[in-house]
Amino acid sequence: MLRQSFHELTLTTRGRGLYEFTDAVVSWLAKGEFKKGLLTLHLRHTSASLLIQENADPDVCRDLEAFFARLVPDGDRLFMHTAEGEDDMPAHVRTALTTVNLNIPVRDGHLALGTWQGIYLWEHRRSPHSRRVAMHFIGE
Amino acid sequence: MLRQSFHELTLTTRGRGLYEFTDAVVSWLAKGEFKKGLLTLHLRHTSASLLIQENADPDVCRDLEAFFARLVPDGDRLFMHTAEGEDDMPAHVRTALTTVNLNIPVRDGHLALGTWQGIYLWEHRRSPHSRRVAMHFIGE
Amino acid sequence: MLRQSFHELTLTTRGRGLYEFTDAVVSWLAKGEFKKGLLTLHLRHTSASLLIQENADPDVCRDLEAFFARLVPDGDRLFMHTAEGEDDMPAHVRTALTTVNLNIPVRDGHLALGTWQGIYLWEHRRSPHSRRVAMHFIGE
Repeated sequence: MLRQSFHELTLTTRGRGLYEFTDAVVSWLAKGEFKKGLLTLHLRHTSASLLIQENADPDVCRDLEAFFARLVPDGDRLFMHTAEGEDDMPAHVRTALTTVNLNIPVRDGHLALGTWQGIYLWEHRRSPHSRRVAMHFIGE
Repeated sequence: MLRQSFHELTLTTRGRGLYEFTDAVVSWLAKGEFKKGLLTLHLRHTSASLLIQENADPDVCRDLEAFFARLVPDGDRLFMHTAEGEDDMPAHVRTALTTVNLNIPVRDGHLALGTWQGIYLWEHRRSPHSRRVAMHFIGE
Repeated sequence: MLRQSFHELTLTTRGRGLYEFTDAVVSWLAKGEFKKGLLTLHLRHTSASLLIQENADPDVCRDLEAFFARLVPDGDRLFMHTAEGEDDMPAHVRTALTTVNLNIPVRDGHLALGTWQGIYLWEHRRSPHSRRVAMHFIGE
């Protein structure tokens, strides 16, 4: 019998960078005894992203951050939306270049993630923030 | 009892830029009396995107467009696919850098969007176009 | 009556570039007699992407690859994660700039793709790889 369930995670960031939260997602699936179905994550913000990336070598996260910092520099004079700080509009651009939605099938009680895939919140603002992720599961 | 429903929205653009259509999505959910479930939007084109972004300050949309225009310049001599105009291949690249799929959980009859999140069609071609968005809901 | 189904595709690449696999997805839907619902694809890797793009003129794929090669150059001295080759960290960045998840509604037994839309695996590594795509369908 198909059913669905909702939950909202709140994640606290210490400023710009990638924060893995795969464990929190796995815990929620285990608690609900969800065996097979579809998991959807939606980040309720416009200056941070959700990302599936390598969780083996921490240099990968460091390099991703370095690349995006160079591609979308803070304080770029191109931008008119500057009232919320010189890192705000770059944060919106980074979000547009990535995504706020993820979907992962669940099978035999496990996320269909690859061996090296982890689920990350990517904070694009320099200052610490509290970020909310809406989670939805449909399945059995 | 779980059910599903489909609809296709047609959106008319006046050329390059972001067009918010959150209200059209909300209206469809209200009409169908969809209370809890998962909404999926799929844009049926390869030179425009779907985007969730800030809908408070219009300068954010202006700056997103300005950044992408600089990152992926029209008439770039790198491109061989030029028969459909100097803005066509840049439009495909912009689409690859963003997305044509969005998923948003629906709870208590409301989309799980954040306070400042709106749903946009991003037209990447300079001339006006008619764009079709396939909508799918599964839930109760 | 709603039901769900899973399958895993294995795709072999000959190195960097775009590989269309729309036909393999369509075949799976036909075999399962899936008529209406939601299809989700999840790529289980961090150095390749899933992409919906134009499948008419092959120059589009060539130009997409050329643009990304210029935007995220191999051997960039910015990167610290270099042990797996000078194309490895650029592959992770390309994956972050695109996506590993796709969702497409299915109606009347057909994917809601636009006329020119095809489903691609985008290999970002230079050497041949075997790539796995988890497929999930929920519907009727």
